[in-house]
Amino acid sequence: MYSLSQALMRAALVNGKGVATRYEGRELTWNETLDRVRRVAAALLSLGVREGDRVALIGGNSDTLLHCLFGVTWAGGVAVPVNTRLAAPEIAYCLNDSGSRILLVDDDYWHYVPEIRNSLTTVERIVPISGNPEGTANLTELASSLDPAEDRGRGGSDIAALYYTGGTTGRAKGVILTHEGFIVNVLQWALSIGVTHRDVILIVAPMFHLVGGLNAVAAVLLAASACLVRRFDVPTILREIDACQVTKAALVPVMVDAIVNHPDTARANLASLQRISYGGAPMTEAGLRRALRALPGVRFCQIYGQTEGGPNISILHHEYHVLEGPNAGKLRSAGQPMPGTIVAILDEEDRPVPQGEVGEICVRGLTISPGYWNQPEETAKAQRNGWLHTGDAGYFDEDGFLYIVDRLKDMIITGGENVYSAEVENVVSLHEAVAECVVIGIPNERWGEQIHAIVRLKEGHTCTEEELMAHCRKHLAGYKCVRSVEFRSEPFPLSGANKILKRELRARYWRDRERNV
Amino acid sequence: MYSLSQALMRAALVNGKGVATRYEGRELTWNETLDRVRRVAAALLSLGVREGDRVALIGGNSDTLLHCLFGVTWAGGVAVPVNTRLAAPEIAYCLNDSGSRILLVDDDYWHYVPEIRNSLTTVERIVPISGNPEGTANLTELASSLDPAEDRGRGGSDIAALYYTGGTTGRAKGVILTHEGFIVNVLQWALSIGVTHRDVILIVAPMFHLVGGLNAVAAVLLAASACLVRRFDVPTILREIDACQVTKAALVPVMVDAIVNHPDTARANLASLQRISYGGAPMTEAGLRRALRALPGVRFCQIYGQTEGGPNISILHHEYHVLEGPNAGKLRSAGQPMPGTIVAILDEEDRPVPQGEVGEICVRGLTISPGYWNQPEETAKAQRNGWLHTGDAGYFDEDGFLYIVDRLKDMIITGGENVYSAEVENVVSLHEAVAECVVIGIPNERWGEQIHAIVRLKEGHTCTEEELMAHCRKHLAGYKCVRSVEFRSEPFPLSGANKILKRELRARYWRDRERNV
Repeated sequence: MYSLSQALMRAALVNGKGVATRYEGRELTWNETLDRVRRVAAALLSLGVREGDRVALIGGNSDTLLHCLFGVTWAGGVAVPVNTRLAAPEIAYCLNDSGSRILLVDDDYWHYVPEIRNSLTTVERIVPISGNPEGTANLTELASSLDPAEDRGRGGSDIAALYYTGGTTGRAKGVILTHEGFIVNVLQWALSIGVTHRDVILIVAPMFHLVGGLNAVAAVLLAASACLVRRFDVPTILREIDACQVTKAALVPVMVDAIVNHPDTARANLASLQRISYGGAPMTEAGLRRALRALPGVRFCQIYGQTEGGPNISILHHEYHVLEGPNAGKLRSAGQPMPGTIVAILDEEDRPVPQGEVGEICVRGLTISPGYWNQPEETAKAQRNGWLHTGDAGYFDEDGFLYIVDRLKDMIITGGENVYSAEVENVVSLHEAVAECVVIGIPNERWGEQIHAIVRLKEGHTCTEEELMAHCRKHLAGYKCVRSVEFRSEPFPLSGANKILKRELRARYWRDRERNV
Repeated sequence: MYSLSQALMRAALVNGKGVATRYEGRELTWNETLDRVRRVAAALLSLGVREGDRVALIGGNSDTLLHCLFGVTWAGGVAVPVNTRLAAPEIAYCLNDSGSRILLVDDDYWHYVPEIRNSLTTVERIVPISGNPEGTANLTELASSLDPAEDRGRGGSDIAALYYTGGTTGRAKGVILTHEGFIVNVLQWALSIGVTHRDVILIVAPMFHLVGGLNAVAAVLLAASACLVRRFDVPTILREIDACQVTKAALVPVMVDAIVNHPDTARANLASLQRISYGGAPMTEAGLRRALRALPGVRFCQIYGQTEGGPNISILHHEYHVLEGPNAGKLRSAGQPMPGTIVAILDEEDRPVPQGEVGEICVRGLTISPGYWNQPEETAKAQRNGWLHTGDAGYFDEDGFLYIVDRLKDMIITGGENVYSAEVENVVSLHEAVAECVVIGIPNERWGEQIHAIVRLKEGHTCTEEELMAHCRKHLAGYKCVRSVEFRSEPFPLSGANKILKRELRARYWRDRERNV
């Protein structure tokens, strides 16, 4: 039996005086980190957290957020890191759905509190992680008169965290991670990428997503160092890589592109940086080629996954990130299933399709999430016949490399965030002038894909692009909002089964472009 | 859910044409290995193997033994690899205790069959792995007319294998490894040592021990290559390292010593060899210093573990295998707990002792075996209060490094094999001339420790050293037999509790010597 708390105790045992985290110039050792976590836990226990209680976190990456994440599980709770980019109603939904009793919010995001307070059905206490917004005592202050808490002993198959992810129906779902599940996923990930206790890990991917969370847990499990960055901008990243001597970084493609295209990059000292793993969205082959040329000392690897998969599914190793030689020609692949994972391409009745043919990418393995929080039917559906159904369509080449050709779930990936078309379509359709609408991803140099609506108006109604975009902003996180609108009078093309043929609508935007997912 | 079969399917998917194994010059790909395993499974199913049946294996390291190991689990069975060095009655005990229905024996060890056949209570069929001893059709011949079998779908927490290990009471116990347990152990081990799909792994440690078994499963899980060697001798090892371009080797200290001290080593081409992990027995500091000087291109790491621990417990990383600099001074340590494992030093009532004080080394973690086969009381005793009690005494230094100072279990490690003094004492005491006897380990340059008996004879009886040694050979595996005998007339020194003070008896042999465990 193992737990996140035991991983932290080990880190303090084996590397107590070593640098655990560096955040905005502040360095904390593993001994100090353990102490902070125990104080957060003491504060949470004084607030009445009981075993298995959900405690939600709204915060940007920081050492303090890491203390909160581990403090929640140390106190016997279940951490619910919430996407800070969501709109207020979406945040309230996650808090209520998870049944969170306590909400921890950092300074930068306290502005959500007045917006959501009256919509919360289960939250009993809202506590600032730092500062004193509205004059409220923060976690550190609450802990100041308390003894550091003893670990409550949760671990193994107990739930450690819920990570909310979008759904085809538009309702977010909480993906369950157990203590041992989380740790095994980190073992698999660290082994595949080659991360060890000797590394300094850059954590700029937000910890409310599993990639950031996995990196944070990896730092603890390996007793390595974490360099935590709250907001991505290239000069900050370049400075932190040098200052912290970062060796490994997990980035989304839009970040890689930004680094590669920034004028400061050529002058920066990136000598310490050994490896960039990228994932969460496809990277164009052209972008990859630019990255390989711009950062010749860095080894790239690609991770394909999804939250339900723990998130690791496959990896394209660095030796396939080459432009010539026997390993060339795999840059558009999502790589090969990781050790501990197996992937099958299945048809609609979950029968394997012949090698080379397209079907749904389905996964089994050590690291698959046990399911969705309080959604046994959705869980059973996603995991029918023992396979996690990713909702992505793909095929294997004859060398066992996986290629993703489409997303069965009708999802757009913009700037590393997943946006379900159905969710945006629902909101657009609420506008009184809209008769029918389709939301698709179209190419965007910066974000990979851009959210584009094709709208048919009701007879006698008018509406401008700006009006529709303003309508979206009221209901949706900024990154989910429509960025361009096309008005259309003719009917949408339909399939034999009378479903709108989105692929046809997308085709004219993607002609002459790569869209490998 | 994951299984050994799925690991093998993945290996064939991602590296089907790559070299899986090399054994005595024969190379097999992962596709061929998968096919062989499926044929072994077909043969076993035709012999009537049912889900959960134990199938015992007596064989030396070879590609075929690996096919048998995975063939058993593919057919839904539980593999029971038996130590080929045991005496016939000991082998029969393991087969009967495990309730094995089928016994697979390779040519080299068929000589055991007539000796044990009449003692077996559960074995229904004995099948040669190769050759045709006594005119019996072998596994390959049985499979020749059969279709390759489909995987029976066992995995997760289903039992995959039983590894027999000695016990303080003298009765061997079957340590349970589940499918996922085995695989998680390999993930932890590979991450800690730095083994990847790019490696060629030397497997000379016998696969009937967990170190050899773990290496074999690692080759499959990572789709790496295994270079299998049946018998350890230095010229063979040197030749195979060069021929197979071995990159990683797991050895017991006696093997490291033999390589370091052999005249051929200086002339051999060992350029491919990146790392040697050693464990299973202590290595003297002097031996380590010689090894570091003799093999300057090799990185050494030490693994401390035991079968019940999966077996990994702690690792002394290569950066501490240095004779000077800030990391020097740790060579006598067994290193630090691996990621996923936590170690505590507990007193007789399982309370933690202060840092620096000696107590029993106790372990929790992802990789601890669920227990002993059919021995719930022994399991409960070994795992009381949620800690695996190793039976070793040790302490932590202020940097979190573990030092092993004694074996509470009164065990001798000779040539990498564990021998329980009690077992040997029981046998010696059976001799009609012996009144009382104590068995201890004394220094031996080649084997680390040598089994030494101190004997008090009955009044009026006589007995020679040779007679006692011959008596041992009738009842015990060769490596467990007494190598030297000291006759004594005065009483043994006793503790206040009237227990024989073995430490005192050992002291005069170990004076001026290192015995760090």
